[in-house]
Amino acid sequence: MGTIIEKARKGEISGEVRTVAEIEKVDPEKLRQLVAEGKACIPFNMHRDYMPIGIGVGLKTKINANIGTSPLACDADYEIEKMKVALKYGADTVMDLSTGGDLPMIRKRMIAESSVPLGTVPIYELIKCVREKGGKDTDWTKDDFLALIEHQAIEGVDFMTLHAGITLAGIEVLKRSNRLTSIVSRGGSLLAAWMIRNDSENPLFEYFDDVLDILYKHDVTISLGDGLRPGSLHDATDETQIHELVVLGGLTTRAWEKNVQVIIEGPGHVPLNEIVANIQLQKKICHGAPFYVLGPLVTDVAPGYDEITSAIGGAIAAAAGADYLCYVTPAEHLALPEIEDVRRGVVASKIAAHAADIAKGIPGARDWDDKMSMARADQDWQTQIKLALDPDKARERHDKLPESAHKAGVCTMCGEYCSFVTTREAGLGKPQ
Amino acid sequence: MGTIIEKARKGEISGEVRTVAEIEKVDPEKLRQLVAEGKACIPFNMHRDYMPIGIGVGLKTKINANIGTSPLACDADYEIEKMKVALKYGADTVMDLSTGGDLPMIRKRMIAESSVPLGTVPIYELIKCVREKGGKDTDWTKDDFLALIEHQAIEGVDFMTLHAGITLAGIEVLKRSNRLTSIVSRGGSLLAAWMIRNDSENPLFEYFDDVLDILYKHDVTISLGDGLRPGSLHDATDETQIHELVVLGGLTTRAWEKNVQVIIEGPGHVPLNEIVANIQLQKKICHGAPFYVLGPLVTDVAPGYDEITSAIGGAIAAAAGADYLCYVTPAEHLALPEIEDVRRGVVASKIAAHAADIAKGIPGARDWDDKMSMARADQDWQTQIKLALDPDKARERHDKLPESAHKAGVCTMCGEYCSFVTTREAGLGKPQ
Repeated sequence: MGTIIEKARKGEISGEVRTVAEIEKVDPEKLRQLVAEGKACIPFNMHRDYMPIGIGVGLKTKINANIGTSPLACDADYEIEKMKVALKYGADTVMDLSTGGDLPMIRKRMIAESSVPLGTVPIYELIKCVREKGGKDTDWTKDDFLALIEHQAIEGVDFMTLHAGITLAGIEVLKRSNRLTSIVSRGGSLLAAWMIRNDSENPLFEYFDDVLDILYKHDVTISLGDGLRPGSLHDATDETQIHELVVLGGLTTRAWEKNVQVIIEGPGHVPLNEIVANIQLQKKICHGAPFYVLGPLVTDVAPGYDEITSAIGGAIAAAAGADYLCYVTPAEHLALPEIEDVRRGVVASKIAAHAADIAKGIPGARDWDDKMSMARADQDWQTQIKLALDPDKARERHDKLPESAHKAGVCTMCGEYCSFVTTREAGLGKPQ
Repeated sequence: MGTIIEKARKGEISGEVRTVAEIEKVDPEKLRQLVAEGKACIPFNMHRDYMPIGIGVGLKTKINANIGTSPLACDADYEIEKMKVALKYGADTVMDLSTGGDLPMIRKRMIAESSVPLGTVPIYELIKCVREKGGKDTDWTKDDFLALIEHQAIEGVDFMTLHAGITLAGIEVLKRSNRLTSIVSRGGSLLAAWMIRNDSENPLFEYFDDVLDILYKHDVTISLGDGLRPGSLHDATDETQIHELVVLGGLTTRAWEKNVQVIIEGPGHVPLNEIVANIQLQKKICHGAPFYVLGPLVTDVAPGYDEITSAIGGAIAAAAGADYLCYVTPAEHLALPEIEDVRRGVVASKIAAHAADIAKGIPGARDWDDKMSMARADQDWQTQIKLALDPDKARERHDKLPESAHKAGVCTMCGEYCSFVTTREAGLGKPQ
């Protein structure tokens, strides 16, 4: 009995720990210890049944895809289709960020039709309920919030973003800052608005023990949201951000004491040269808890290409120790993503995660690259396509080549100037 | 009289140095000194007339777009169109890598229809001439090669990739290596084949002084090619690569002594955690000469998305001191790029260069990001579009939003859950 972390702390290698250890090819006892210390977690709601995944030190970097309707783009079927595309291209988890339409129905379908951990941001549903009743965004009570968290926990949500780190003190720091983009977290801004309107402390912070009791009961992992994360390079690594991080560090210890697993969420927009410091700081202040970063985006100026700006930041972050990357799609800052955006977002994030796993020295990570490079040297196109991160894309490009290229076993980039051919004929390549 | 570096070494602030100093907002005397020391260069053929650009320490990171036909995809008009797209999205230089069709005609058009420095890889035309005469790829002499270099210099080529660093000794190192992908440089493989076939030293190396005399005469910058660069993560930073780099270091000094400007070309495929070492090594061994990297790609497994794998590597490389990024397009490893590939390649490379310039502390680099973020906080969409690295892409996405979004001044990502609205209403954002 007990939660996954509770069993690990008692010295028990649970079924979830054993399965993740097998998938990751790590020693189960070593993983048990990491879970017990909170340095790795296995988001796994006790009401669900699927293959668990692990997030944390020594494990492969995981990636998350955000799915969900908005009030202005609300088609549940399309969101389910997006989720399937995200899973096809390798998302390890999905989050349902829906704010439009029938939220419980969409969530139920996402739980039913996926086989990976599902995360949510409960405040979205809270606000939606309030609005539907004709209330203002601040017309809810602490008990409404707790009831909603429990409701989603019973439904089977594996991890929840809860912005418990925004405090009245933090808002004072924000007010005296020179931020360009104030609060860019939706949940963070909604909580801050409630706190200011009611002149009250953040209920998630004030009643954190009550929150933990609910999460413990259903073995839900808390993803401590960074409601005050920087939304621009200018605001990165500032006093407001770091003030909240320090609060999150304290909450981490309290969650572990109550046998609740923890993930820490991180920025956001961060200049390239500040990323490593951000990771080191989080790992230190939050006692080694798994770090889940949104991006980070290394420039603000590339709307339409933010899967690239975030792949740059994500790769550097993960190589420096971030454990979990939230994808960013090309639609970021412009629109709700479409299916092709989801595909590009997942692939870009997988590239960042894999490049980081090689850099981190995850055992066997580079084998995939070596196999691809051997297939390249052999001009073995079918194996190259099969090994590609997105085989559909590689096949599509390859199939478009003219017949003459297929016959010669080359591509149109070099044609008969192919270095592999020249090198082999000169006796310097692998004989074919 | 004399070349740009010659004048700089004599203490003269030439017109080119003055213009570049103005564009880059640096002190002309400081730039003169960097050019004199070889730490910055201004590729500028004396037969041409356009706006010079500078490449090197303290200057903005530059990007190059490779354009050119291949025997299997040979449409000169289409290549000129690709060049124009590359320039539109911000390529600082272009290289004509054509190997198919009427090479002198294509080159002349590229020189006539662009206003940026043009680079070439002369061995391509050499081999094409040999093949047209029915000869083997190794049927040419040192004098043929030198004549071709001079021919292209007279035509106005600003910088030439010459693989003078491949030596018989280097090939011996390669032979005893365990490389997966041997030689992936086309020019490198063609030279190595010639050397093996003729059992002779690389003529570019053996007659390097003759090469320099020609380049000096027309003030052509030498881009010392890395013919033995790694073509897979497995082969990165190996003895073969570093052996060639050491040779290039020696050639750099000789070129400067003859008043010829130098650029050093670098890899290729490099694991993320080896990139910084590669830059430091090049800067040390090649005495601070500007470093021009192709990528580097941080994984081998993502054909169809190599603009992303190379943007990750390029950003890290440039932040660590690389001065000049060669773009890589999504078509890399699969096909000759199409127009949309060129656009994506340039944009990805510009993202990497700009992110690095912020990290390097290039004065004013982040102003652009700050302006964008202020426009975001103001929900000023027209300014966001205007400031976007690719305004066409941003406008296209924005124009597709439903009327309800336009009316509310929000996008479909958050709709009425927009954090900027919530924050402003709570008194935490900038008043609108």
